[in-house]
Amino acid sequence: MKLYDCKTAPSPRRVRIFAAEKGLELQTVAIDLASGEQFKSEFRQINPDCVVPVLELDDGTRITEVIAICQYLEEQRPEPTLFGRTAIERAVTLMWNAKVEQQGFMAVADAFRNTAKGLKNHAVPGIDQHAQIPELAERGRKRVEIFLDKLNQQLGDRKFLTGEFFTFADISAFVVVDFAARLKMNIPDNAADLQRWHDEVSSRPSASA
Amino acid sequence: MKLYDCKTAPSPRRVRIFAAEKGLELQTVAIDLASGEQFKSEFRQINPDCVVPVLELDDGTRITEVIAICQYLEEQRPEPTLFGRTAIERAVTLMWNAKVEQQGFMAVADAFRNTAKGLKNHAVPGIDQHAQIPELAERGRKRVEIFLDKLNQQLGDRKFLTGEFFTFADISAFVVVDFAARLKMNIPDNAADLQRWHDEVSSRPSASA
Repeated sequence: MKLYDCKTAPSPRRVRIFAAEKGLELQTVAIDLASGEQFKSEFRQINPDCVVPVLELDDGTRITEVIAICQYLEEQRPEPTLFGRTAIERAVTLMWNAKVEQQGFMAVADAFRNTAKGLKNHAVPGIDQHAQIPELAERGRKRVEIFLDKLNQQLGDRKFLTGEFFTFADISAFVVVDFAARLKMNIPDNAADLQRWHDEVSSRPSASA
Repeated sequence: MKLYDCKTAPSPRRVRIFAAEKGLELQTVAIDLASGEQFKSEFRQINPDCVVPVLELDDGTRITEVIAICQYLEEQRPEPTLFGRTAIERAVTLMWNAKVEQQGFMAVADAFRNTAKGLKNHAVPGIDQHAQIPELAERGRKRVEIFLDKLNQQLGDRKFLTGEFFTFADISAFVVVDFAARLKMNIPDNAADLQRWHDEVSSRPSASA
């Protein structure tokens, strides 16, 4: 197995943390997104969507999309489970992961991609040109605030996002919170539960993966 | 089990088709999105995100998000599988479902929510107010065109999106194509493989669920 990766991008980080939690060491190939390596024909043959992560299996199958890669890794190394132990736990983990992706990740990405100087005509991932929309960046920032508050409320007395166990949904939320911080959208001072959880997840060895 | 549903909305339709393919009959509760029933306190207690579908289990657990609901139903009634028979098939199904959601569903939703008269300050699902962004609607329409072309290419000689078997990814793509058609973004004349697949999926009894 081989992971096409980029150390500075949030999506492949989710996979690296996931693998680290499983004790899986993945061979990685660095793709330099900053210089546009993802748009070169060599990488487009690997993933026509021009995004990382991509997990290449030994039989040549290539899997893109974080959820698909992590589900595959979960099946290869079921313990410790990061998706849940029962049907309900698995559903709740997937539910929270989806909320984090749509309400958190997409909001930060809207804020980032619609303002970053290096993404002028690349406001949407991929080879197609899409102009930046400043109003969408603004909407993104507003949604990130709402999302951080929601995370704080959901955490409340819970140790992790879905309860007593660390899951894939925590990984997704953790990466989103750090992605937001890069845009100076930090955990608000009054979000004590979110801060406590973030400190705890940051102290796991996988956080540096 | 009870499904909070809305006959005119695309997301709950994915769940209804999924359940129909499994031969599962779900008790449904209609939520009238057009009149804003999702914002009333009664429904906000069921789902603070103010969206359908919501699957309520007999123990009171509520699951939102299509992927989480369908994963739960898959575990309750594994046959016929709609997620795949092997780890690789399951990964490829989740991969295509994610591409369809991000590149297809989100694009149609951007086009729809940023122009619909009834959604003036509700360009994003939920109770929070977000003004419509006409440029984002335009970007959405452009992305839908690209997406329909991509679906057509992926289908090619394949019977279904991921190969010989009908999966959750086909359900998602089918609902997106029909959602786009409501905005008069129809299958292009030259997209013969997409049209053939759409005809085939339309003829399944589940299509009217």
